[in-house]
Parts: sequence; C-alpha cells; structure tokens
Amino acid sequence: MSPGQLLAVLELVGVFAFALDGALTAMRAAHLDLFGVVALGVVTALGGGALRDVLLGSLPPASFSDWRYLFVATCGALVAFWGHPLLRRLSRPILLSDTAGLSLFCVTGSAIALEAGAGPGQAVLLGAVSAIGGGTLRDVLVRRVPTVLTGGLYAVPALLGATIAVAGGRLGADGLPLALAAGGSCAALRLLGL
Amino acid sequence: MSPGQLLAVLELVGVFAFALDGALTAMRAAHLDLFGVVALGVVTALGGGALRDVLLGSLPPASFSDWRYLFVATCGALVAFWGHPLLRRLSRPILLSDTAGLSLFCVTGSAIALEAGAGPGQAVLLGAVSAIGGGTLRDVLVRRVPTVLTGGLYAVPALLGATIAVAGGRLGADGLPLALAAGGSCAALRLLGL
Amino acid sequence: MSPGQLLAVLELVGVFAFALDGALTAMRAAHLDLFGVVALGVVTALGGGALRDVLLGSLPPASFSDWRYLFVATCGALVAFWGHPLLRRLSRPILLSDTAGLSLFCVTGSAIALEAGAGPGQAVLLGAVSAIGGGTLRDVLVRRVPTVLTGGLYAVPALLGATIAVAGGRLGADGLPLALAAGGSCAALRLLGL
Repeated sequence: MSPGQLLAVLELVGVFAFALDGALTAMRAAHLDLFGVVALGVVTALGGGALRDVLLGSLPPASFSDWRYLFVATCGALVAFWGHPLLRRLSRPILLSDTAGLSLFCVTGSAIALEAGAGPGQAVLLGAVSAIGGGTLRDVLVRRVPTVLTGGLYAVPALLGATIAVAGGRLGADGLPLALAAGGSCAALRLLGL
Repeated sequence: MSPGQLLAVLELVGVFAFALDGALTAMRAAHLDLFGVVALGVVTALGGGALRDVLLGSLPPASFSDWRYLFVATCGALVAFWGHPLLRRLSRPILLSDTAGLSLFCVTGSAIALEAGAGPGQAVLLGAVSAIGGGTLRDVLVRRVPTVLTGGLYAVPALLGATIAVAGGRLGADGLPLALAAGGSCAALRLLGL
Repeated sequence: MSPGQLLAVLELVGVFAFALDGALTAMRAAHLDLFGVVALGVVTALGGGALRDVLLGSLPPASFSDWRYLFVATCGALVAFWGHPLLRRLSRPILLSDTAGLSLFCVTGSAIALEAGAGPGQAVLLGAVSAIGGGTLRDVLVRRVPTVLTGGLYAVPALLGATIAVAGGRLGADGLPLALAAGGSCAALRLLGL
C-alpha cells in the first residue's frame, strides 16, 4: 500500500469512528430522530477535516469533493443508530470511538497539511485542529461545554500525536509504523489523562 | 431577466427572509435590544452563503463584497423589529420566513456552486449548506439545539431542492420554472414534515 | 517604527488582551483546568483574526504561520491563570481586556484587510469581524449568549473604530495617531454604552 493510500484509508477509518461517536453522543444528548442523528454524525466526522482544509486554503474541502467521506460518515451514523443496543455492551463506546477519531485525525491531518505545503509547525497545529474540530462542533451543536475545555487532556494528546507524526516523517520514519506510534501515543495519553 | 439576474434577485429575497426569521427568533429567545436583533438577523441571513463561499474558496464571500446583501439583511431585521406586532397576525411568521429562506437558498446556493465550477454532487451539498448554515448559526448563538438536529425533516428538504435544481439544470430545464419546482418541493416537504 | 511593524505590535497586544479576557472568562464560567483555560484563551485571541483571514482568502491565517501569535496567546492565558488573584484587584479585568482587544483588533483587522487588497467597505466589515469574532467564539464555547447579541453596543464600537481607521487612512492620516484615535473611539463608545 502506498503512503497516499494508507493516508486515505486511515482518514476514512477516522471519519467512521467520529461519525459513530457523534451519533452515539446525539442519541444520549437529546431526543433526536434518524435525521438528526445522521446530521450530527456527519458534522462530527467531517467538521475537523473541513476546518483543516479551510485553514489550509485547499478548497473545496476533500470531504466535499470525494463522495467516500460522506458515504462512510453516513454509514457510521447509521451503524450507531441501529447498532446502539449492541454497542452498549462495549464498556464505553463513545470514549473509544472519540479516542480513535482523535488519534487517527491528528496523524492524517498533519500529513495532509504537509502534503499541501504547510511548514512543520503549521502541520502540527492543523493536525490538532483536524482532530479536535469535529468533536468541538459536536459539543457546540448539542450544547455541551466542549471536551477540549473540560476534558483534561484532549488538545494535548492531539498535539503530541501530530508532533510525533511530523517529526518522525522528517527523520525518515516509515508510514505505517510511524502512524501507529503517533496515533498510539495520542490514544494512550488521552485514555491515561482521564 | 437573465439567469444571473434571476439568481441575484432570488438570493436577495432569501437574505430578506432569513433576516426576518433570525430577528424574530432573536426577539423570542432572549432580551435583546435593537443592535442584538439586527446582529442576529444579519448572521442568520448571510451566514449560510458565507459558509458556502468559504467552502467553495470563492473569497471574499459575495455578502462581503456586495453591499446589497448587508443592506437587505439589515432591512429584514428592522422590519422584524418594528413590524413585530403586525407580523404576529400571520399564523407562524418564524416558520414561514425560515421555510422561504431554506427553499430559496438551496436553489441559489447550488446554482452559485455550479457557476463557481463545482461538480453536481458538490453543488447539491453546497446548496444544502447555504440553506441550513444560517439557521444553524442562529440556533447556536441563541443557545438552541439546532433545528437541523431536532426538526425532523430540515436537511432533507434542502437536499431535495438542491438535487432538483442541479438535475433539472443538467436536463436543460428553464430558469424560473425550475427554481419554482425545486424551491416549491423543498418548502412542501419542510412544511409536510413537521 | 514602520507602519508594518506598528501593525504587528498592535496586533500582538490585541492577541494578549483577548487571551487574558478569554482565560479570565473561562475561569469564571466553568470548572476548567489549566489546559481548558489555555485552550479558551487561545481561541478567543486567535479566532477573530483567523475568521478575518478565512473570509479574505489569505490562507493559511497569519496566526497559523507566525509562531509569535500562538506564543503570545498562550502567555496571556497563563498570566490570567496564575495572576488571577492579582488581576482581581483591578476593578473589572474582563471588561478592560475585552475592550482593549476589541479596540486594537478593529484597527489592525481593517488595516490587514486593506493590505490584502480589500475595498474600504469590506475592510470596515472585516475589521469588525476580527474584533468581534474571538469573543463570540469564546461565548459560544462556554455557552453564553454572545456579547454581540446582548451587550448593547458591542458591534457598533468595532464598526466605528474600523470606519475611522479606514477613512483616516484614505485621508492620509498618520499611523500611530490614527490608530489611537480609532481605537480610542471604539473603547470610549464601548465603555460608555454599558
């Protein structure tokens, strides 16, 4: 698998995880019907990447020109809507899917920023924005104080993961192991920080 | 009237409708003075189109470079502020102005996206974003859970209207009848879906 | 000091003032830890300028490509976090830092817009957006109805300051005196309007 394909796959997995997370949060937060659940799942999943693309100036955002994003996000939300009773058996489905999205997006977001010509510092910031943006939009829409403000370590793991991904890439580290190390560090710090 | 002129007129009617809607919502939601009512009317009226232009990358947004937008939005908010007692005699002034803005913006938003070079899929999405964006900003600012999440059919009518407008345009349908069919379908589905 | 240097210094002072304001607001509004306080300070400080740059299409925003912005914003938030007991002796630290940020950003924001090629009308609007944007984001994130809707004169002083800055510049007025006149008018109207 080429680095570009790896990036696309990880990004779509992140989209799925955040759509699941947004839809599960939606169902807990308010009396939403199918349409509301899908809308919140899609916004959570695509919001962070769209914000990154807007700040990069690479417009229209990838999530608007590539139909796989919207398709995967809708699927994630529908899985959450119909699979809700099964997912509840997992100990903390919202925490897990949120952490997965955070870890994947800080890695893919910084790589996409580097590819678009951003410097290393900007790439770290934009990786964190990709990771944090969707969840923050989700919280604002369901009227919660955003996790980034109250959740202890939330921005810091995303910044750590993005920093490892950018620094490792400059040191010549390989695609998949580097992505695992960066995303894993982000996830570990996020889960430990709670 | 040329298609471009028709588009501009419909867009400004939509701006007026959303400004009315935002200002009426503002007056019901919180103790706002004249400045707050005008601010919320302007944000509701121009927010969706500005979001569309940002996502299209056609910057600065039309609503910032063309003074008629701000003027019409301010007029709409002032009509709501001073005409409030008269408007109350209409059965549901907020619902009607919101539906009018939604129906007009899904048609004009997708047409503007096509003109800016977007593909048909993107044009449908950006039409819906234009239509939904202003009302969602309004709800976030007055701390309501956005209508797009709770209002049953809200995103779906906008997507339907934009799809009819884009598909009809590709099939060679004429400007005004097509706009009426697309906007009318959106309004009908919105009002039926409540 | 050249006009460009003056602009950069004023902009960074505005970033510091808004970071202080955002962090102080954060500590009053919710039980936030250090990370949450810094996050809200940074968003308040850099949000308005980033919004201006997005609307101008000059991307990535200056606050993402120039590390001094993030550094100064973080410092401002940390000063608020640790200096909180001392700052409380000032009669109204939040009001004062908010007014300082508003007054500085309406001047620098309109000048940056003019430099980027915007017309005078757009420059006035974008100056006001720079000044109002950060505080509005702050309010949305801590779930307050934004000051721009409830605070009486909040948008109007920003529009006044930006108008004086743009009009004075076209009449050939000098950098520092003009900035003082425009920012001072904004601050005076803001404080009188309460």
